[in-house]
Amino acid sequence: MNAPFDDWDDVSVSTVGAREAPALAPVKASDKRVVNGHGDINQLAPFRYPWAWEYFLTANRNHWAPTEINMAQDVQDYHHKLTPAERHMFENVLAYLTTSDILAMRNIGLAVMEKMTAPELQIYQARQVFEEALHTWTYQHCIETLNLEQEEIYNRYRVVPAIHGKIVLANRRLEKILRSDLDLSNRETLHEFALSYLFFAGIFEGCWFYNGFSPIFALQRRGLMKGTAEQFQYIMRDEVLHCAFGLRVIRELMHEENLVLDPKAVAELWMEADAAEEAYAHYILREPILGYSADLHLGQFRFVANRRARQIGLDEPFLGAKATLPWLDEQANLRKEKNFFETRVTEYQTGGSLEWD
Amino acid sequence: MNAPFDDWDDVSVSTVGAREAPALAPVKASDKRVVNGHGDINQLAPFRYPWAWEYFLTANRNHWAPTEINMAQDVQDYHHKLTPAERHMFENVLAYLTTSDILAMRNIGLAVMEKMTAPELQIYQARQVFEEALHTWTYQHCIETLNLEQEEIYNRYRVVPAIHGKIVLANRRLEKILRSDLDLSNRETLHEFALSYLFFAGIFEGCWFYNGFSPIFALQRRGLMKGTAEQFQYIMRDEVLHCAFGLRVIRELMHEENLVLDPKAVAELWMEADAAEEAYAHYILREPILGYSADLHLGQFRFVANRRARQIGLDEPFLGAKATLPWLDEQANLRKEKNFFETRVTEYQTGGSLEWD
Repeated sequence: MNAPFDDWDDVSVSTVGAREAPALAPVKASDKRVVNGHGDINQLAPFRYPWAWEYFLTANRNHWAPTEINMAQDVQDYHHKLTPAERHMFENVLAYLTTSDILAMRNIGLAVMEKMTAPELQIYQARQVFEEALHTWTYQHCIETLNLEQEEIYNRYRVVPAIHGKIVLANRRLEKILRSDLDLSNRETLHEFALSYLFFAGIFEGCWFYNGFSPIFALQRRGLMKGTAEQFQYIMRDEVLHCAFGLRVIRELMHEENLVLDPKAVAELWMEADAAEEAYAHYILREPILGYSADLHLGQFRFVANRRARQIGLDEPFLGAKATLPWLDEQANLRKEKNFFETRVTEYQTGGSLEWD
Repeated sequence: MNAPFDDWDDVSVSTVGAREAPALAPVKASDKRVVNGHGDINQLAPFRYPWAWEYFLTANRNHWAPTEINMAQDVQDYHHKLTPAERHMFENVLAYLTTSDILAMRNIGLAVMEKMTAPELQIYQARQVFEEALHTWTYQHCIETLNLEQEEIYNRYRVVPAIHGKIVLANRRLEKILRSDLDLSNRETLHEFALSYLFFAGIFEGCWFYNGFSPIFALQRRGLMKGTAEQFQYIMRDEVLHCAFGLRVIRELMHEENLVLDPKAVAELWMEADAAEEAYAHYILREPILGYSADLHLGQFRFVANRRARQIGLDEPFLGAKATLPWLDEQANLRKEKNFFETRVTEYQTGGSLEWD
């Protein structure tokens, strides 16, 4: 090895947040932090968060592509078997999802990832950014296969208030943390960042996405749109990881920064999300379809929301909410295997206060 | 479909750059732009840049994972067959690459992607961000398999001036365009952005990476370190796409914005890159190894640099440079198939002034 050399002025540009004289010694794991770290962002190991690396490896093992799934029967089902009410539901769910996953990509890629100061966290998020793009590809594949009018579908979130309402909530949170020069050493800003990340991981991905495929799964359970539903099962498996990872990061962040979330702000988060979901459920299911309804949809949202709250050590927002779709968690279990991240979490969670159902 | 509704104040937050009253009509492809666009970033289709979507699909077809490749013989080779000079070369190439790919991930994920105002461009870049993370995983896999001291390897770029020099150049370019509020309607800033992106796509990925695996391929050609070399062939295939995509985006950008790159600034880019590469080549090959030398390395760098310049419609910076590693392009042709993006580019390039060798 060569001896260290003198001209280190430029090294500081390679670190995030560190403008002081750089250390030449290897990075210590204990120097790493979720945010506000001064370690060298270019050095992957040693890991402070080895679980983040495991998430990355797991996500890679889960690799799939929409073109692998047979959609032939879906074309028949869509055009010849679905009722008008079912087609209305199907199209609007798809319209909501297309917009949502581009937004999710931008959130994690542009707002969250850059604030992380440990490369192993960025590495999983890089995979996550790609997965959101993969999901967008999936919707595009469904739209093309079913020969839907893509421009109309993509634009629907700007025309339908009940879809628009959910996107607006998400965009508000995204806007608040998008700036690259966000000062996370400011306690108020840090709190805002944690709330926004909680919204995206816990609600947007953990509830809205997790439960967002349910109306399609209800068709699948009756033997309809099975190709689309299988696509969505793969997406759901990814989203379960995104949610679990995000909540884990937020817990670490709260621990490291000694941050307590304001219960009033959190309650507002849940209530806003609930109101938007209620309007959405009533719109996509304005006419009942066999085996599914707006009430079932909203009941399951609240049941899942309670689970997400517990995972982050918060009080349940919807007291007494019961599972209205008891088959949903099983549906998440792709190919009837155990859904590792939803059911066997003890290996992934060190905090004793946290449980998954 | 529902009628449009009134409360559109919030819609503007969902668009990039557009603060005027939002249009409710579907996005028109002709409204999209590489940067400075006012279209709705949340609507994927209709595509203005269908080639970007094709890049995304091609990249997905190229999917691979480092754990699929047999590394057993490499462990033997590394510890029992390589000479000290070969081990010195191998370790320092690996050390350079580990740092480089994290930097590449941050560049495309944090500096470039957010400036794009057409979602189909962001979609490919989302895949690219992931591929850089996949490459980082590959180096980590090699380091673990060969039982190298990972902390020392990761830190080497801060200790070895010849490695540090290349990283500093890259970090300078990254710093210039990292801010999320970069005003690309300012001509000077736009020029700086184009130059930085040209550096990353054309030099960092298109020359340094493209030619960066050559010393390892020289071992492979003698039957040594074949597992590592196969890993690097997969990485090289990805990098070829990254480079081709980036140069295509820059050409579109120059066309749309009527931007001409300052020849003096471009010349400086090449000369800086050449000087850094020369120091690096002499360091990793301070003692010659069988079938490879610093002169061969630098000669090939200049030959490839000329190709990149032609691809973007610029003059060749290194007049008369000849291929010193005639086998390198063939090496890029994984499994001896045609390397689609290096040799059959007519379908991917509409500009008549652009040729690939």
